[in-house]
Amino acid sequence: MEVMSGKNNSFCLNNGDVVEKIKSLGRLTCRKIWKVGKEDKRRVIHSLKVGISLSLVSLLYLMEPLFKGIGENAIWAVMTVVVVLEFTTGATLYKGLNRGLGTLLAGLLAFLIERIANESGHIFHAAFIGTAVFLVGAVTTYMRFFSHIKKNYDYGVVIFLLTFNLITVSSYRVDSVLKIAHERFYTIAIGCGICLLMSLFIFPIWSGEDLHLSTVAKFEGLAKSIEVCINEYFSDGIINQQEEKVRNYSMEMEDPIYKGYKAVLDSKSSDETLALYASWEPRYLRSCSWQQYVKLGTVLRHFGYTIVALHGCLQTEIKTPQSVRVLFKDPCNRLAREMTKTLKELGDSIRNRRKYCPEIPSNHVHEALQDLIDVLKSQPRLFLSTNSNTNILLALATLATRQKSGKDFLLSLPSVNNDDPARLGLSHVLKEGDKKILRPTLSKNGITSLEFLEALPFAAFASLLVETVARLDLVIEQVVELGKVAQFKEFSHDDVVINVSCDNNPRVESEFPSSHTAAD
Amino acid sequence: MEVMSGKNNSFCLNNGDVVEKIKSLGRLTCRKIWKVGKEDKRRVIHSLKVGISLSLVSLLYLMEPLFKGIGENAIWAVMTVVVVLEFTTGATLYKGLNRGLGTLLAGLLAFLIERIANESGHIFHAAFIGTAVFLVGAVTTYMRFFSHIKKNYDYGVVIFLLTFNLITVSSYRVDSVLKIAHERFYTIAIGCGICLLMSLFIFPIWSGEDLHLSTVAKFEGLAKSIEVCINEYFSDGIINQQEEKVRNYSMEMEDPIYKGYKAVLDSKSSDETLALYASWEPRYLRSCSWQQYVKLGTVLRHFGYTIVALHGCLQTEIKTPQSVRVLFKDPCNRLAREMTKTLKELGDSIRNRRKYCPEIPSNHVHEALQDLIDVLKSQPRLFLSTNSNTNILLALATLATRQKSGKDFLLSLPSVNNDDPARLGLSHVLKEGDKKILRPTLSKNGITSLEFLEALPFAAFASLLVETVARLDLVIEQVVELGKVAQFKEFSHDDVVINVSCDNNPRVESEFPSSHTAAD
Repeated sequence: MEVMSGKNNSFCLNNGDVVEKIKSLGRLTCRKIWKVGKEDKRRVIHSLKVGISLSLVSLLYLMEPLFKGIGENAIWAVMTVVVVLEFTTGATLYKGLNRGLGTLLAGLLAFLIERIANESGHIFHAAFIGTAVFLVGAVTTYMRFFSHIKKNYDYGVVIFLLTFNLITVSSYRVDSVLKIAHERFYTIAIGCGICLLMSLFIFPIWSGEDLHLSTVAKFEGLAKSIEVCINEYFSDGIINQQEEKVRNYSMEMEDPIYKGYKAVLDSKSSDETLALYASWEPRYLRSCSWQQYVKLGTVLRHFGYTIVALHGCLQTEIKTPQSVRVLFKDPCNRLAREMTKTLKELGDSIRNRRKYCPEIPSNHVHEALQDLIDVLKSQPRLFLSTNSNTNILLALATLATRQKSGKDFLLSLPSVNNDDPARLGLSHVLKEGDKKILRPTLSKNGITSLEFLEALPFAAFASLLVETVARLDLVIEQVVELGKVAQFKEFSHDDVVINVSCDNNPRVESEFPSSHTAAD
Repeated sequence: MEVMSGKNNSFCLNNGDVVEKIKSLGRLTCRKIWKVGKEDKRRVIHSLKVGISLSLVSLLYLMEPLFKGIGENAIWAVMTVVVVLEFTTGATLYKGLNRGLGTLLAGLLAFLIERIANESGHIFHAAFIGTAVFLVGAVTTYMRFFSHIKKNYDYGVVIFLLTFNLITVSSYRVDSVLKIAHERFYTIAIGCGICLLMSLFIFPIWSGEDLHLSTVAKFEGLAKSIEVCINEYFSDGIINQQEEKVRNYSMEMEDPIYKGYKAVLDSKSSDETLALYASWEPRYLRSCSWQQYVKLGTVLRHFGYTIVALHGCLQTEIKTPQSVRVLFKDPCNRLAREMTKTLKELGDSIRNRRKYCPEIPSNHVHEALQDLIDVLKSQPRLFLSTNSNTNILLALATLATRQKSGKDFLLSLPSVNNDDPARLGLSHVLKEGDKKILRPTLSKNGITSLEFLEALPFAAFASLLVETVARLDLVIEQVVELGKVAQFKEFSHDDVVINVSCDNNPRVESEFPSSHTAAD
């Protein structure tokens, strides 16, 4: 903050201040640098890997014996390393193989065109090259708009165009186009080779692992969101709620509910990118489960939208009266607890690459849901008593009945002695104490109908909870499917007991995935 | 379909079939090529522009006088065109300027390092270059993890690293490192120049225009979603609903509701990319409104989540009885109509770059909302009569009252003659005809409490509608803010009358935005 305000007032600072400001700016920068590395230590590793790879590939040019073998074109290898070596192995492979394939195809096409062009005169040769460059450029660029090519081979197409132009245009002045193509191809191959070596065998960072762990983190985020959401909804005190409301609007970023589902909502593009790169990684090639992760991501996003709506219930203008909320606190809490547990179990089973057994925990959710529904069923008095205003309604109804239909209506009722009113939730409909409230409130006409509006937000909340359970089933379905497709190990009861724990920092685990590499 | 199955059975096909299959495959490909171009004609224009630019830049190499001036390095210009010329002007400028800046800085740093290295011996020189390459490589790569740099200068950093390595490593064998740097820089400048010329003056495609129109399209999509959603909710016939449900689950892609809000939900990354590119476009530089578009996108996404939840109401297991829905059909329809109208007006005001006047149309929404709330208020009988089962409840309540409190309760009631029961919505509480139903249903204990569960989905629906209005206000707020920031023209009443039309194909308009360019 000091630095920021210092910038504005810099014209009135003396030298001492300037030194001080520079120092604090330096300190801020250092802290920022430290923070970026601390967030994900693999970033430091990747940076060192790039430095080492570049130094290695530079040796081709710097060391006499190597330079004699390869020559000037060693510089292509350096360029390849800069462009191809990406953060994850999958991205490096995607770029490396695309670059290799693009170069190869471009070389072949350029050779073909060169053959045709060579049989003509010098002027015609130039025109022919110009036309070929135009046509290939236009067609290749148009191809990049095809969604399948755009998704899987975009980089390859750019490299194809680059290499094709390079070789074709050069061929006008250099005689041996085959030699250019050949040199370019094998220097690029050397560069790609170094990149693949570095990214496959030296502290590899797998996109698949990232996608896997980000999926686990999503489950934990959603579980956290539901937990906090329910707690806040049923927390006592209106002041507390007002505070929350202000907090929710002003610092939505800090809200733990928002933080929990945020990562899920905007995960589409990152999921798809990670899945694309993961599909190039040899380690998981046989399982081909990446599209299933993307599918699971879509279902989770849909689940997340309901949580957003639940979150919205905390912020509505019309508040459900505390008395109504208290009635449903326990079953709602139980349902939320069961859902949170299930979500954590789902996340855990994915983390441990263990098949999820939908029978056992899901039943608890449905039991809890049935509980809530039972409570909802057994509480018609929500609209009939609870709040004393409705008693007026009842009384008025009775009176209206008496006035309109006469006493014969009540007399025509069959005997209800065998139906205990308590079982119908009616035992508390009218208490002695309520009578006192009747007189002062009767003059307000609209007040009898306030209930429905008041109950509205709670009904929405309850309905959304039910909806959430329905969508949780879809999530479970996709997790089970993932277990099948990714060939996770079978479910065992011991795992559940040991593994149900909440690890909020899944990234740390993936910093040393090198132990897996030996298997490939 | 035929082609697909043909692939599997190809081993049993005769020659005639193969020819036929190839023909149909060819036809399919042609249709696909045609479709990609038809979807967005600017793709064809862009492809032709790339072809022409490449041919132009090739002339540097092909034409004798130009080649004499520039020499071998003309090939860098060709490479630059391939890499820099992007679909939109903003993207081209972003890449071109990043490439230029990166090259310039790298050249300067390489020159500095070369100066220091030159003062040492040959062996030390190599070691020094190796170390410099390692350090610069590691530091630069690490810098790419800073979110600000990643977002705005990622490409520039890559080019910096590329050029730095190219020059530094080459400098070991070539004497005049300044010459390499210089040549690389001006050939890249020529390439960038051609790209900028092509993208700024020949059929320019503006990212800002894309972002603008995609925002308008979002409003229309949301309006459509709400419209269809309300229509489907209040459509008659359970069979119809069952059909819908099957349709919603099996072909969610085809669902008009889903189609309407889909583009909004996953817009984050595309919005941000377009805003980034747009911020480089000179045409709109002074307004700097792109971050406001991104903000509006965020609010619209939040609005969209409520529509998703509304959509979820169509798919719940517990159906609201037709009789309940009919009661609220008109006010809900009116509210939806008003919201749709407002959304269309908002979209229209953005499309026409006209300030939105929140007073006039928004009031209708709030009137409609008040109507709905009034109807909700005036319908406490939803839970008391309407469905004959509740009458039993009332009757039972009365009976319970009589049994427990004795007749003195009813006697203690003040006179309510001056309160017309009809005004309280109680006039139809008990009709003569209902008496017949009492006897057979009384034996079912739980039935009296079914109402709340049945009303649950409708309450959720109503509550979400109210929530939608609240979020619509946030959207309006951001649109008004956008009008200010982007300096849209003032609101006039004539515009509203003329422009409220639903144009579902906003893209077509932007194919010829060249008429605007003269102003810049």
